[in-house]
Amino acid sequence: MLSKNDIKLIKSLKYKKQRYLHKMFVVEGKKSVSEFINSKFDLHKLFSINISEFSINNVIQVSQDDLKKISFLSNPDDHLAIFKIPNEKPLNKNNLLVGLESINDPGNLGTIIRTCEWFGVNDIVCSLDSVDCYNPKVVQSAMGSLSRINITYLDLTNFLKSESLNKFGTFINGESVYENKISTDNGIIVFGNEANGISNNLRLLLDVELTIPRFNNKSYPESLNLSNSLGIILSEFSRKSNEKKNL
Amino acid sequence: MLSKNDIKLIKSLKYKKQRYLHKMFVVEGKKSVSEFINSKFDLHKLFSINISEFSINNVIQVSQDDLKKISFLSNPDDHLAIFKIPNEKPLNKNNLLVGLESINDPGNLGTIIRTCEWFGVNDIVCSLDSVDCYNPKVVQSAMGSLSRINITYLDLTNFLKSESLNKFGTFINGESVYENKISTDNGIIVFGNEANGISNNLRLLLDVELTIPRFNNKSYPESLNLSNSLGIILSEFSRKSNEKKNL
Repeated sequence: MLSKNDIKLIKSLKYKKQRYLHKMFVVEGKKSVSEFINSKFDLHKLFSINISEFSINNVIQVSQDDLKKISFLSNPDDHLAIFKIPNEKPLNKNNLLVGLESINDPGNLGTIIRTCEWFGVNDIVCSLDSVDCYNPKVVQSAMGSLSRINITYLDLTNFLKSESLNKFGTFINGESVYENKISTDNGIIVFGNEANGISNNLRLLLDVELTIPRFNNKSYPESLNLSNSLGIILSEFSRKSNEKKNL
Repeated sequence: MLSKNDIKLIKSLKYKKQRYLHKMFVVEGKKSVSEFINSKFDLHKLFSINISEFSINNVIQVSQDDLKKISFLSNPDDHLAIFKIPNEKPLNKNNLLVGLESINDPGNLGTIIRTCEWFGVNDIVCSLDSVDCYNPKVVQSAMGSLSRINITYLDLTNFLKSESLNKFGTFINGESVYENKISTDNGIIVFGNEANGISNNLRLLLDVELTIPRFNNKSYPESLNLSNSLGIILSEFSRKSNEKKNL
């Protein structure tokens, strides 16, 4: 049965401060919940309208009305789980990393996590002021990929200063990503804030400034959507790296 | 001054039926409003907290409180305009077209319009059950690109049956878009519904089934976000077409 304390806890997990106080976050939907259960994440409690669908402990039978009380979704799914926030894992700097500076939009971060997994990027490093990856909207739009991708919050400027990696950044006026000859399986590609791009401080620390050229002979639109840019850049890196392997 | 009739009209334009009854839709934000004013769209009325920013007719001075009453945004911008829905323009079939089947998410369609403009696609054809391009959330996320891109709603199955174009579709298990040799400046690339992809009926009408291969040696994630897939596919088409021109 759903207790008042459960409801109170879940509602509080909408807020970052409370998530890190309790070291817990919420996952909704059968597919995502299953992927987190099959990962290294520890389940705290699962609330389900059909507990027979899960052969694990800590499952609590709830009604549709109960779910409406606890869900963050406008159309609640049949299952809602609380997982524990794990300790951050060490970065694997032998693979390509993605760096995000001051990213704001939770839907963007979720999509980015999913796209990173698609292209084999296992580590994302985020500046400390970026949106929290356990925000319910991030979890929702990452669609399970968050259970397998390692996300680290750190001082991105200090990180770039101290690491000897190939450092790529994406800008409006850089070298065409199609023409750049570098094909690498490691290094870091940095993407900036949705509205302002990469800050000047951080720009100074980068080795290569890349751009996705417009193919329309116009000066519009001003920019591409952040997660779309990231998808295109990772696609180009993957394509080139794959071509090199096949030479 | 903002009249009761203005408020009533604007609120009604949230709904597709009312938009097509009045043949009008709403644009918010100075940048987008300016881009629509500078396009072939006809302005009906502009509501602004600073009318001196626009040297045109039909501008009405409003207060911040007025704007809160009429805006569809949680943080209203300083300017809100009503434009007339234009008649559909003929398609230019000598350029690459994008086809969308049963696309649901207004944010996705907006991002797709912006990304299409970036890659020089000027015509998007949507199945009749796709989300309306004058939906306020589409207008918002298209960020002005809607004022320059031609969007046509039609029976997509009949269109594909009757047109002799190169017909590409995107699937989970198709030919790698990186390995496919076709470089073309015309034809149509079809993208399916966010959850279900391209329908079987429509699939039969396509010439080439393309896929963006995973670069992660896993079977996750199940799919890429729709607008990210579209960005990557258009990027590959543009890159190849540009390479051919430079040979």
